[in-house]
Amino acid sequence: MEWTHHSLIDLEDLSREEIEHILDTARSFKEVSTRDVKKVPALRGKTVVMLFFESSTRTRTSFELAAKRLSADTLNFSSSGSSLSKGESVLDTARNIEAMNIDMIVVRHNSPGVPRILADKLKSSIVNAGDGCHAHPTQALLDLFTIREKFGRIKGLNVAIIGDILHSRVARSNIQGLTTMGANVTLCGPSTLMPVGIRELGVTINYDLPDVVRKSDVLMILRLQMERQQERYLPSIREYARKFGVNSEKLKNAKKDIMIMHPGPTNRGIELSAEVADGASSVILDQVTNGVAIRMAILYLLSGVKS
Amino acid sequence: MEWTHHSLIDLEDLSREEIEHILDTARSFKEVSTRDVKKVPALRGKTVVMLFFESSTRTRTSFELAAKRLSADTLNFSSSGSSLSKGESVLDTARNIEAMNIDMIVVRHNSPGVPRILADKLKSSIVNAGDGCHAHPTQALLDLFTIREKFGRIKGLNVAIIGDILHSRVARSNIQGLTTMGANVTLCGPSTLMPVGIRELGVTINYDLPDVVRKSDVLMILRLQMERQQERYLPSIREYARKFGVNSEKLKNAKKDIMIMHPGPTNRGIELSAEVADGASSVILDQVTNGVAIRMAILYLLSGVKS
Amino acid sequence: MEWTHHSLIDLEDLSREEIEHILDTARSFKEVSTRDVKKVPALRGKTVVMLFFESSTRTRTSFELAAKRLSADTLNFSSSGSSLSKGESVLDTARNIEAMNIDMIVVRHNSPGVPRILADKLKSSIVNAGDGCHAHPTQALLDLFTIREKFGRIKGLNVAIIGDILHSRVARSNIQGLTTMGANVTLCGPSTLMPVGIRELGVTINYDLPDVVRKSDVLMILRLQMERQQERYLPSIREYARKFGVNSEKLKNAKKDIMIMHPGPTNRGIELSAEVADGASSVILDQVTNGVAIRMAILYLLSGVKS
Repeated sequence: MEWTHHSLIDLEDLSREEIEHILDTARSFKEVSTRDVKKVPALRGKTVVMLFFESSTRTRTSFELAAKRLSADTLNFSSSGSSLSKGESVLDTARNIEAMNIDMIVVRHNSPGVPRILADKLKSSIVNAGDGCHAHPTQALLDLFTIREKFGRIKGLNVAIIGDILHSRVARSNIQGLTTMGANVTLCGPSTLMPVGIRELGVTINYDLPDVVRKSDVLMILRLQMERQQERYLPSIREYARKFGVNSEKLKNAKKDIMIMHPGPTNRGIELSAEVADGASSVILDQVTNGVAIRMAILYLLSGVKS
Repeated sequence: MEWTHHSLIDLEDLSREEIEHILDTARSFKEVSTRDVKKVPALRGKTVVMLFFESSTRTRTSFELAAKRLSADTLNFSSSGSSLSKGESVLDTARNIEAMNIDMIVVRHNSPGVPRILADKLKSSIVNAGDGCHAHPTQALLDLFTIREKFGRIKGLNVAIIGDILHSRVARSNIQGLTTMGANVTLCGPSTLMPVGIRELGVTINYDLPDVVRKSDVLMILRLQMERQQERYLPSIREYARKFGVNSEKLKNAKKDIMIMHPGPTNRGIELSAEVADGASSVILDQVTNGVAIRMAILYLLSGVKS
Repeated sequence: MEWTHHSLIDLEDLSREEIEHILDTARSFKEVSTRDVKKVPALRGKTVVMLFFESSTRTRTSFELAAKRLSADTLNFSSSGSSLSKGESVLDTARNIEAMNIDMIVVRHNSPGVPRILADKLKSSIVNAGDGCHAHPTQALLDLFTIREKFGRIKGLNVAIIGDILHSRVARSNIQGLTTMGANVTLCGPSTLMPVGIRELGVTINYDLPDVVRKSDVLMILRLQMERQQERYLPSIREYARKFGVNSEKLKNAKKDIMIMHPGPTNRGIELSAEVADGASSVILDQVTNGVAIRMAILYLLSGVKS
């Protein structure tokens, strides 16, 4: 198929075929990272800028590694120590960076919509690395990749997303990706953290965790932001852990080949137990490994399309 | 011509011919940044260290990109988290970095004279990326490049520098560069921010902004540092904007092909309006683009001369 | 000889032959850094991660340069702005980084033992870049290299380590390295800063600095941490400087070819005078230069051994 997107902002922009094309491309790049010389010359002489307005470990590092393994030059541009403290707007900053003839901007920002604005106004390829509670498309793509790698398919699988759905860009992008690929998506979590009208996205809501666990092929466990308790969304962290935290006990009636996912970093003992996080069903580290492959695929595919 | 300088500290060290040689070299490097593979092997195996004691976005990024496009290795060395918080002197730090067999140090420091001291004491090439209120030679060179690119010449043009002349290293380096190249330089701004004895540099002072605008081919608008009000140099920011801020209204009687420059980042609504910053006369983003080319030229030229 | 270590945690793990092999390897890499093109392709396509939980200038920069001169890709991963502030454990962080198929982790942490734990639990090569008061093996190796380079041997030399022995990982690693290589090691410093039972490591304690100076071929002067005074280890900094600070006066009865070492950064006027630090006997900058060569050797040797 011919790839026609210049930027990656949200999975709602992609068809099933396009998502499959990304996953196929990532599969071949995954092999590169296992070689002795983990490098291909695909993006030699291109410049990829990491424009992170929110601190991040894994995502930035993952993109940076992906870019370097494609032989691109990378530039880190975080908000602290930059002209942003001098009052420049995000768009102004991005325009100035673009004026240096760079090729792609990987952007993370706590305001939903910032990556879309940059994509509309700039000529560079924009990759959304997380915008507020809105979207985190490369996380969803690496999750799809990890599911397909293990089960050989995504269609027809029962995937439960457990936790703070309301504030989760990971949940939102996964709902889009999973439903596009034909999975059956169930959401589970405190009712105060369940978005109104979310059923319209084609998902099921089930507040009964034991029932959810019993029926699922995949449990996608979200990270709990501790500040949600101060914001009165939760009675207590302990109560949350008791009701929605996943541990071995709660997995007793699960399918034998159930797959445990988490976008990281984990709060062990809260949303999942250490035993489950490190157990045989967990693919948490595979997700990290696959993240580099997915990001190589995205950078590679976007680089071929001029705006 | 044969290039003989090992470091770049101040434009007063350069002749008209030398400045022209830099601009010509930058012209050929500008083309590199428009290629698909934006890289030449000129500095392969050289190490360029960014030694920034003041936070900076554009300048550091611009130098880093320039170095990478010349295939040099780059090292970032900012003051926070470094041994400087352990009490080491700047010279001691630089000597230690040099002992690692690096080739060039790009230095920014808030004390005037630091780059000159390093150039005197070290064997590495030193590039001044801004020292206090003293000098910012690569900014002036990219401004000269941008003017020459548009007008085909610098000599005989009327260039006005508007704003806080007193504290501006950009103004000081541009005054040197522009007068060396034969431009007529006019300074305009609050009298409290006009340095005593500045006329001796061969410039005109004109406090009447409308008159300045009418006569100028180029307006070089300086960034206003907000803290100048606290320091009692200004009655108020609003008053400054009213009297010296450049907007469409004030440009009514300007020459049709007037060129608007600003070193960035801009305070829109203060020293210039958003309309002017983004208007057809503005070359602000061209300045950013040309900055990379000028810095490639400087790194390239200095690298060929042994101390 | 065949190199069999996959990680470098502590010099007590190395035999005399192995240390000599490292020094020989570093000698050939030192030459690389004096070339016009300071780069060899030895680690092309490998990824070296700098995982620094303590701020550091020289050591991180030295490792980063070493990796780049071997053509490896490098990633900086410091604790601030990372998921560590989100509560992840060190091991969890390292496991996640490793999942990205990186090859080596250079780690600094203020808790003794962290590098050993990582080496035990991970497949990547781990290089200890300093763990609390425990060990700093590459510092000791570069010190051994510097001594051997000047004297042509280490065996039989009288080496004094002067200062805060108690809290010094540099002292501890050097004691191991020097005794393994057959040097006679004397410790000198305030008795409150002398570890109990240290004689068992095969060293001599001598509190009489003039006597120590007279007998030594090498003075290895440690950095004084100013906070030791608040912690009541010292009556005053001034008193320390008077008694244990090394200056020209105190060197009057020293051997003519005495060698002055310091791991940097120096507190001039406290543990040594500026005159001595910059004098003909000082090899402080040679130590910095040799640090890059030693780290190239370590990265190179470890890269060849699979865990």
